Amino acid sequence: MFLNQLCNRTNLLYRIRQMSSTTREFLANRPTYAQDVSKLQPFIDLAVDWQASHGVVLRAPQLSGADAPWLKAALTPAPVALAPSPIPRTEFERVVQLQPILNQLFHRIANDHEFLVSTLESLGSADEFTARVFKMYLDQRELNVEKPAVIGVHRSDYLIDAPAAEPASVPRAKQVEFNTIAASFASLSSLVGDLHRFLLARTGYEGLIESGSIEPSQLPTNESLTSIADGIAAGFSLYGNSGAVVVMVVQPNERNVYDQRWVETGLWEKHHIKTIRLSFAEVLEKCTLDENNRLFINGEEIAVAYYRSGYAPTDFPTEQEWQGRWLIEKSRTVSVPNLAYHLAGCKKIQQVLAQPGVVERFIDDLGTADLVRECFVGLYPLDETKDGQDAVQTAKSNPDKYVVKPQREGGGYNTYGGDIPPLLEKLSAEELRGYILMELIKAPGFKSVLLRDGALFASEVVSELGIYGIWVSDASGSVVVNKHGGHLLRTKSSDVYEGGVAAGFAVIDSPLLV
Amino acid sequence: MFLNQLCNRTNLLYRIRQMSSTTREFLANRPTYAQDVSKLQPFIDLAVDWQASHGVVLRAPQLSGADAPWLKAALTPAPVALAPSPIPRTEFERVVQLQPILNQLFHRIANDHEFLVSTLESLGSADEFTARVFKMYLDQRELNVEKPAVIGVHRSDYLIDAPAAEPASVPRAKQVEFNTIAASFASLSSLVGDLHRFLLARTGYEGLIESGSIEPSQLPTNESLTSIADGIAAGFSLYGNSGAVVVMVVQPNERNVYDQRWVETGLWEKHHIKTIRLSFAEVLEKCTLDENNRLFINGEEIAVAYYRSGYAPTDFPTEQEWQGRWLIEKSRTVSVPNLAYHLAGCKKIQQVLAQPGVVERFIDDLGTADLVRECFVGLYPLDETKDGQDAVQTAKSNPDKYVVKPQREGGGYNTYGGDIPPLLEKLSAEELRGYILMELIKAPGFKSVLLRDGALFASEVVSELGIYGIWVSDASGSVVVNKHGGHLLRTKSSDVYEGGVAAGFAVIDSPLLV
Repeated sequence: MFLNQLCNRTNLLYRIRQMSSTTREFLANRPTYAQDVSKLQPFIDLAVDWQASHGVVLRAPQLSGADAPWLKAALTPAPVALAPSPIPRTEFERVVQLQPILNQLFHRIANDHEFLVSTLESLGSADEFTARVFKMYLDQRELNVEKPAVIGVHRSDYLIDAPAAEPASVPRAKQVEFNTIAASFASLSSLVGDLHRFLLARTGYEGLIESGSIEPSQLPTNESLTSIADGIAAGFSLYGNSGAVVVMVVQPNERNVYDQRWVETGLWEKHHIKTIRLSFAEVLEKCTLDENNRLFINGEEIAVAYYRSGYAPTDFPTEQEWQGRWLIEKSRTVSVPNLAYHLAGCKKIQQVLAQPGVVERFIDDLGTADLVRECFVGLYPLDETKDGQDAVQTAKSNPDKYVVKPQREGGGYNTYGGDIPPLLEKLSAEELRGYILMELIKAPGFKSVLLRDGALFASEVVSELGIYGIWVSDASGSVVVNKHGGHLLRTKSSDVYEGGVAAGFAVIDSPLLV
Repeated sequence: MFLNQLCNRTNLLYRIRQMSSTTREFLANRPTYAQDVSKLQPFIDLAVDWQASHGVVLRAPQLSGADAPWLKAALTPAPVALAPSPIPRTEFERVVQLQPILNQLFHRIANDHEFLVSTLESLGSADEFTARVFKMYLDQRELNVEKPAVIGVHRSDYLIDAPAAEPASVPRAKQVEFNTIAASFASLSSLVGDLHRFLLARTGYEGLIESGSIEPSQLPTNESLTSIADGIAAGFSLYGNSGAVVVMVVQPNERNVYDQRWVETGLWEKHHIKTIRLSFAEVLEKCTLDENNRLFINGEEIAVAYYRSGYAPTDFPTEQEWQGRWLIEKSRTVSVPNLAYHLAGCKKIQQVLAQPGVVERFIDDLGTADLVRECFVGLYPLDETKDGQDAVQTAKSNPDKYVVKPQREGGGYNTYGGDIPPLLEKLSAEELRGYILMELIKAPGFKSVLLRDGALFASEVVSELGIYGIWVSDASGSVVVNKHGGHLLRTKSSDVYEGGVAAGFAVIDSPLLV
């Protein structure tokens, strides 16, 4: 058995090593894009109109000081990259292949009550939000609520570690984070791949490509337009009422509605399942529990509650929203994710997982565990342990090599470089338990052209690759679905550390496999 | 032969008469829609988001006094009816069946040089625009330009004559006009049918339908999303250069872009034909003719020029635009429509066609000619002939029964009711040659709910049914395609005489066959 595992690992690693190019080769094999946007104007209408025709749009932002009636229902094309951005083919394929292993890993983490308790208790009172979710998890466990299925819709995010200063190295996808709740942009991501395929076929990107070339085979197909709906439908059928509905729990005033509507469209057109959009406050207001612990809205039974909200403290401005979520959690309705899945996606879990021997707690096969570890960068606590104190010192002396991340999700709260030492000084030991330290991944920059608000911007950019993962298991724990569910590429200017698509910092992109 | 024709006609008319309901039955069999829009708010997001996801959108209007960057590429959902509007099934089927006959009729009119000359010369100098098109037609004829195909993309528009005051009558579709140039909304029309099918399946229109019901079988399929692209592609292949392109000639600052883009998408995805959008001014600026009379843009040969502009004097603000059109007309490029088709669509032709014996000039079969005539209402000249003078008198004494229409296309220039007598007084005899008098069709009102700018409006409405017609013949005159190409329903408030969708007066609708 041990020999078998070893051969298995060796074979896999050997295969990848054989196929991988060096960083030098990867960087050299990328096409270059023209940066003089004045010559690229004909692309604008073609791209924007394709987006408008194919639903790659956002609700427009509020506009103060103007009141034309059409503003009420105004739309705007989602910000996109004009052309795909290069990603090493072997790394893309590796993380795609890895996804079912990660789905399995996180399912096991979520089902390891002891591990969750010991890891999350170490947070102390440093993170009220996670503490509240954790308490809800304990309350639910206390109630012994029976759920007919577990549905996971995950996204594992990676940056490509390929330092130009080390041309002989092999580029490696390194995990930024593993999202278990409200992973967005699956639908628009797939459509942006189609947009790039259209532009390539229609224009050959003539005028944009300055050197090198793009072949259609370099643009991978992307099933993320349908994978989430298919996963939810598979879990829905385990619930056992074909006349029930799905509730999508959304943020009020969501601008990224169409990404969500495509999931709803998939559920409706492919699976004849109706979706009702509600905020957590509306769940509390409109849903009722019957004596059999079944949740209803207007007489329709809710089989699945798919969360596109609930990942950040701002999603719970009042006690109403917490109560809305609790109504779902204590019912028979399958929440996506369930509370344990939500907790398993915490940064603290990610950090503990990177410690020696922890992956192996969940994955027996050492070869497989190694494949998982290969994606990790250094992750450290900032607490009062010896490791934590060492990490604080390291971060203070080499802040440019690290990022400090708080527990909470949703982006925009991370601290980089020179801002790290003062932050570490400012926070109390208690507060520091709510943060982790992570090695910074040096993703290579690429000169691209982005399209936002009908205008082109040339910029050096960095791309983050997300791989969706779909998991469905039944009440007995039997696995019904465990697969990768397509991909997302988000691209932003190299000089911006972070920021989302909706906030206007990043754009939706698609990978060009090199 | 005569006996055969007679049997033919008798059979057809008999069949229709047997199937037709009375006006009383038609009016009674319509469902009724709730008019309290405050209770219909949940429909708004569902409809608007479906539109945004499926490209049923317009470019947003200009907004003065605001300058958020996103306004540049802003979109707005096209105005639509929330639910389909009733049309008598037999009349719908009759005009669908009639369309190939009308395509044939107009092809013959366009090829009857003598008829065109005698009819259009009677306009004198009353209509400069038509005179200019007519001159271009004569110049082209002089040059003996060879075109490898004739492509017709028509739309015959009807109102349903079903006066509530005559409940025992049978509702009849009466022709408002026959469009041979730039017939729009084919794509969005088909999609609005899909929207209504979606809303029906998803909601059962619960809360909207107050009495009666809607069955899916009452919502006819509509091939207008693809019929124009298919027709153009059939004509394109007669041109004989599979590497050539289509130019769509458009108005600068067009807001109804997406209706047009769907034609382009059809040409691209189904037929691998590339479309380039140009204004007439850009045609002059960017296209060149070679020694073989072939037209090129950036080295690509133009097989077909599909006009979505050029029907109104405002499309030719300067001599540039006329010269752009002439460049196409004198080349080998197939224009859609050709000049004779454009002329055949003039109001004057429509009026002359309604005179006794004129349809029969083009259609030998008396039964068929009768079927065509059945769609006509009274149409009269307002010129110095005996008929014209009689018509002037009739219109002055019974203005409420008529509409006065000028030659020029594009809507918005007609005169109704009490405004007719002063107009007839004001215009000189010379000017009056440029107008026709038409009996007003008493279409029944219907209480519907319209959706515009994200808000619902209840209103009594009137619907106008358009049937698209596709014609393709080769250089020898052999017919390659002669078919109906789907339908359009436009609906507007009963209290508004006219006004287009883009102008905000009408909405795109779909027929509910009753």
